[in-house]
Amino acid sequence: MGEFELIERYFKRAPQRAVLGVGDDCALLQPSPGHQLAISSDMLLEGRHFLSSVDPLRLGHKALAVNLSDLAACAAKPLAFTLALALPWIDPPWLEAFSRGLFALADEHGCELIGGDTTRGPLNICITVFGEVPTLAGRAQALPRSGARAGDDLYVSGTLGDARLALEVFRGTVSLPAPVFELARRRMEQPTPRVALGLALRGVASAAIDISDGLLGDLGHILRASRVGATLDVDIATDLVASYALCTGRTAEFDVDIEVGRWRQFALAGGDDYELLFTAAPTQREAVAAASHAAHTPVTRIGQINAEAGLRLLDARGQPVRNDYTGFDHFA
Amino acid sequence: MGEFELIERYFKRAPQRAVLGVGDDCALLQPSPGHQLAISSDMLLEGRHFLSSVDPLRLGHKALAVNLSDLAACAAKPLAFTLALALPWIDPPWLEAFSRGLFALADEHGCELIGGDTTRGPLNICITVFGEVPTLAGRAQALPRSGARAGDDLYVSGTLGDARLALEVFRGTVSLPAPVFELARRRMEQPTPRVALGLALRGVASAAIDISDGLLGDLGHILRASRVGATLDVDIATDLVASYALCTGRTAEFDVDIEVGRWRQFALAGGDDYELLFTAAPTQREAVAAASHAAHTPVTRIGQINAEAGLRLLDARGQPVRNDYTGFDHFA
Repeated sequence: MGEFELIERYFKRAPQRAVLGVGDDCALLQPSPGHQLAISSDMLLEGRHFLSSVDPLRLGHKALAVNLSDLAACAAKPLAFTLALALPWIDPPWLEAFSRGLFALADEHGCELIGGDTTRGPLNICITVFGEVPTLAGRAQALPRSGARAGDDLYVSGTLGDARLALEVFRGTVSLPAPVFELARRRMEQPTPRVALGLALRGVASAAIDISDGLLGDLGHILRASRVGATLDVDIATDLVASYALCTGRTAEFDVDIEVGRWRQFALAGGDDYELLFTAAPTQREAVAAASHAAHTPVTRIGQINAEAGLRLLDARGQPVRNDYTGFDHFA
Repeated sequence: MGEFELIERYFKRAPQRAVLGVGDDCALLQPSPGHQLAISSDMLLEGRHFLSSVDPLRLGHKALAVNLSDLAACAAKPLAFTLALALPWIDPPWLEAFSRGLFALADEHGCELIGGDTTRGPLNICITVFGEVPTLAGRAQALPRSGARAGDDLYVSGTLGDARLALEVFRGTVSLPAPVFELARRRMEQPTPRVALGLALRGVASAAIDISDGLLGDLGHILRASRVGATLDVDIATDLVASYALCTGRTAEFDVDIEVGRWRQFALAGGDDYELLFTAAPTQREAVAAASHAAHTPVTRIGQINAEAGLRLLDARGQPVRNDYTGFDHFA
């Protein structure tokens, strides 16, 4: 099978919203009147962003999910994406499963594949995604990183740290009962982009980012862009590791020997969470709850934005916790 | 140096046209009123699309050039691009030269870097480029592959085959005098995207494609999309190999022993030409000449579109030439 047959067989579908789809030199895309286009690009490499053993269906899902997560953080509605794919060889069952996982998530969000590139090389998936945000008096109603204000509440969606926990199982540094591992592994391999929540937070949140490199690292981006500081409740964040409750005897289901410091590490600097971290004024608490409800996505208040620069970590008793947690750096 | 410092040092510039530039979850882009966005994506891998010995400044140029070439083929005006970059390690002199070559070409075309991704891995450059095309009564004034009509003239811009000739020198199958090799190598490593010509051909050409996989292969895409055939003058096309005149004694400068069949191969199926192949009605001959003049880009009429399907190759005496030339397939 050659390059063109590969595209034809696994990736070509009739164009929907795009004026010209897969197969011309360019795709043509028209944002709705009064909207701007939001654009983000992510590259996933075998061995760095996913393990070679991953189910290709989950990988197809994840490759698009991490890009949709960036749109979610900007409150952009998904429209379309391009896919550039380097493959070491043409493996029809792999391609069949990969494209099925990819299109299942794409269809769920009405997000159309409009172009791309394929070549032979070490497995590498590069997706660029397009969404739209309405403009008001010429200004895009996106959620920037720079909008956090002193006094704002700090929230996070969903759960934290489970993807990192699964990675540590693969690395052999922890062992888990099979059902807990399965839960954690699914969070690592098939994350849910919080698109509905991002859209529901338009006009409610003051700043947002998606957590890909770890809670504290990505919070740092908001604090720097907004020129503010924050206080964070470490124990509330740690309670958001879904496996934590299952493993610490709180539900008495399993008894796993992982010290509390590592659980905190997973929650605060795990990476690969793809949850939304956002800020909103205290006057917006009911609106945040309504957005969470409308998007069927739990959100938890984990701290507060301060005028004073820097990040202060406190435990449940209000005692300071030393910040030994570094974010995930793809060159570290 | 980490991921964020790398972006900060080599790739971050103040946003111009983009509303949000490098450094937020998404970039925001607004096409001009009455325009659609043209989008294309290309991935370049070491060892497949470029040699590891290539000057990084030329590589930065080429990575963007091959994408701008796709915009040119759609008659789209360049606006912006994203860059996803996998690097085996952080090499400051390499990054300095790569980004310089990249931005030199970007600035020449007013094309702004608005986002992307960096990660550690086998050297891989994935660029997605954005241009705009005006719409008329809701229809984009792009040059599709599907617009060729029986009776149309067939044209190609610039020169053909020199990039392939240089590749064959690297492969050791031909040897060339140094000045001829330098010319051919520059065509391979630093191609010129025909953006100005593409724009000048709006409303003049009926169909267009950029030649990346070889003249015949890419002509095949136009013929299939337009449901037509073509007749092509093989010797006129072969005369477009810039090194040919220098090497065949026509200018008596060099005497190189390469048989005519191979020169034809370079011209017809060389790959990496990044010239525009386009069709236009015979009534447009003066307009094509004017576009060529305005864009400072030579164009040559190399054949004709026919209603009869299939591709007929003729030599200078009008005798049929067997089509033994296959295009470049990245999985072959």
